Amino acid sequence: MTKKLFLSFTEIYGNGDGQGTNKQQQALNTAEPAVTLRGVGNSLRGNLDPEDERPVISLIHGNSSDFPRFRTSSAAEDAIIDALKSAKYNHYTPTVGLLPSRRSVSYAKFYHQELEHHCYIHILMQLLTLNDETIPNPAFMYEKYNVRKVAEMARKLGIIVIADETFAYMTFGSTPFVPVGVFGALVPVLTLGSISKRRMVPGWRMGWLVANDPTGLLQDSGIVEAIKEYLSTSTDPSSFTQAAITQILENTKEDFFSNMLNILREAADLCYGEIQDIPCITCPKKPGCALFMMVKLNVSVLEDINDDMDFCLKLAREESIPVLPGVAVGMKNWLRITFGIEPAALEVSLGRIKAFCQRHAKKQ
Amino acid sequence: MTKKLFLSFTEIYGNGDGQGTNKQQQALNTAEPAVTLRGVGNSLRGNLDPEDERPVISLIHGNSSDFPRFRTSSAAEDAIIDALKSAKYNHYTPTVGLLPSRRSVSYAKFYHQELEHHCYIHILMQLLTLNDETIPNPAFMYEKYNVRKVAEMARKLGIIVIADETFAYMTFGSTPFVPVGVFGALVPVLTLGSISKRRMVPGWRMGWLVANDPTGLLQDSGIVEAIKEYLSTSTDPSSFTQAAITQILENTKEDFFSNMLNILREAADLCYGEIQDIPCITCPKKPGCALFMMVKLNVSVLEDINDDMDFCLKLAREESIPVLPGVAVGMKNWLRITFGIEPAALEVSLGRIKAFCQRHAKKQ
Repeated sequence: MTKKLFLSFTEIYGNGDGQGTNKQQQALNTAEPAVTLRGVGNSLRGNLDPEDERPVISLIHGNSSDFPRFRTSSAAEDAIIDALKSAKYNHYTPTVGLLPSRRSVSYAKFYHQELEHHCYIHILMQLLTLNDETIPNPAFMYEKYNVRKVAEMARKLGIIVIADETFAYMTFGSTPFVPVGVFGALVPVLTLGSISKRRMVPGWRMGWLVANDPTGLLQDSGIVEAIKEYLSTSTDPSSFTQAAITQILENTKEDFFSNMLNILREAADLCYGEIQDIPCITCPKKPGCALFMMVKLNVSVLEDINDDMDFCLKLAREESIPVLPGVAVGMKNWLRITFGIEPAALEVSLGRIKAFCQRHAKKQ
Repeated sequence: MTKKLFLSFTEIYGNGDGQGTNKQQQALNTAEPAVTLRGVGNSLRGNLDPEDERPVISLIHGNSSDFPRFRTSSAAEDAIIDALKSAKYNHYTPTVGLLPSRRSVSYAKFYHQELEHHCYIHILMQLLTLNDETIPNPAFMYEKYNVRKVAEMARKLGIIVIADETFAYMTFGSTPFVPVGVFGALVPVLTLGSISKRRMVPGWRMGWLVANDPTGLLQDSGIVEAIKEYLSTSTDPSSFTQAAITQILENTKEDFFSNMLNILREAADLCYGEIQDIPCITCPKKPGCALFMMVKLNVSVLEDINDDMDFCLKLAREESIPVLPGVAVGMKNWLRITFGIEPAALEVSLGRIKAFCQRHAKKQ
């Protein structure tokens, strides 16, 4: 093993919930002071104009669960209620999680992948802290070919891959989702999974870590033991939510997912179309997954805007539209626009961004 | 402020869930290697005799939620279901917790104490890590007079008090529960509260921290900010459980608590009575709260038992009764017996402990 122990491989831009990971990531990516999602969000909210009588439309959030059309499935709610009403799960749970739940999130089951002759270790957890031996690498919609390349590169470097796949299968474009763990024969993979994103329940705080470790390297090197040690002093997901995970995974109907993906596809189309009409921002590729659109900000065509942070602070002040500056996810002079909101509100908010850009455009 | 910054004041022996706190506490109390509750539990379970056909009866657990008679109230279950079904709480929550929930656990409300002219800061959290500037002091059933003495001593030393009151109001003896925070005028108090113990739902993972800070010292010294900083990288309790807390606190009927306390009082009586007949252990005082009985082990009357750990390992092996050695909670040559189980099983287990002691007694 080299000094660089982990390769953190993120399926989409950023990490959404801003629980500190981006702060660390940012500190690693640049020598500048760390910028956190939460910190930026607070600054933008603090910059809103209380005199503006128009509704605030936030395009900053990492989930759509606030909107009625993105309500989670009844199957997921029923699973929680069944576990709760059984009264069998009020007790403390093992630090590594309930065994049946761990089986349910095992690689083969969750990813519908047959990985014969592989060894699975699966550990429920909520948080993995990056350290100074981590190479964070936020990535976006990689084709299967590219995912294989990542695995091959990690193998060459003698490091392991940590894949944040909390947005697994939340794809509606032409590129299907490819879990990194299918290349577990090439390199050991630690995969982070969750019900937060695809099932629109980030507040339920239920995630897991799956180790795909066919050669036993994660086990033999002590990484698995180190994770267990960490779990013994961190907090656990609630017992009945853990217990519900099997039913949540098994009973959520395909209709629920296809409906969500249709809504997101339409919202992405709408957002992409409107952005064509806004001269100072460009979207290099229409997103095919998740609920964010990364757009490049061209400050050179603007009169009095220094950078993405400045743009977003003034936009919040003048138009009551909080948008995430790219710097918060390590991409200076980009913007992250959340399109996973109600379509009418999305249209209004993009209209206000257009007016803002026109007002601040350099005179020809 | 002196170097010793915190005085950790625990209402009952031990911390129940063994999430690492005892490990740290033990390391502080003695120069010996740290012993954790979980570690000891694993050793005892590992020492059970698979050939023994009698049922294993554990007297080691820190909660009674496994037993039907200790099922939580329907009000608590309904509160969770209502919050879940509202679909209003699937989103991320603020790191410090939902505001209405924080109001519900504020000192005055939770402790039914009118503390006029005091300033309240209340922060939802799940874990507080002790550090080397902490003086841990597990205590048991202090009278109001003693609690005041603790506050006065802390004031004299120029330190603050951290009160672990997760077992608040779980008293059935002659000494009523006295929250340390009522002496907040003397010294700043950080109180840890939870629904885990009294409502028999430790797995729900819902607790909070209340700062009683009339002089503003916790605020001015940066302690509150430091706690908030910690919360920004730790995991949150699930959103709908947070949202349910108001209803749980308001709707749980007094009948539920009085019934629980009656069950525990009867179990304590039964346990205390049976222990009078076991010569090698003595109980200095019948417990009047919680679900544990601390008994002194007299190894000098035993033939081949070195200490409490040796006693418990052999007891697990020979009688299939796991009991916690006192060393795990900083009290060498004591035993912690959980009486919060079904009475028939309690009677059987104490009978087996008696037989074990008789078999290992020194010959006269």
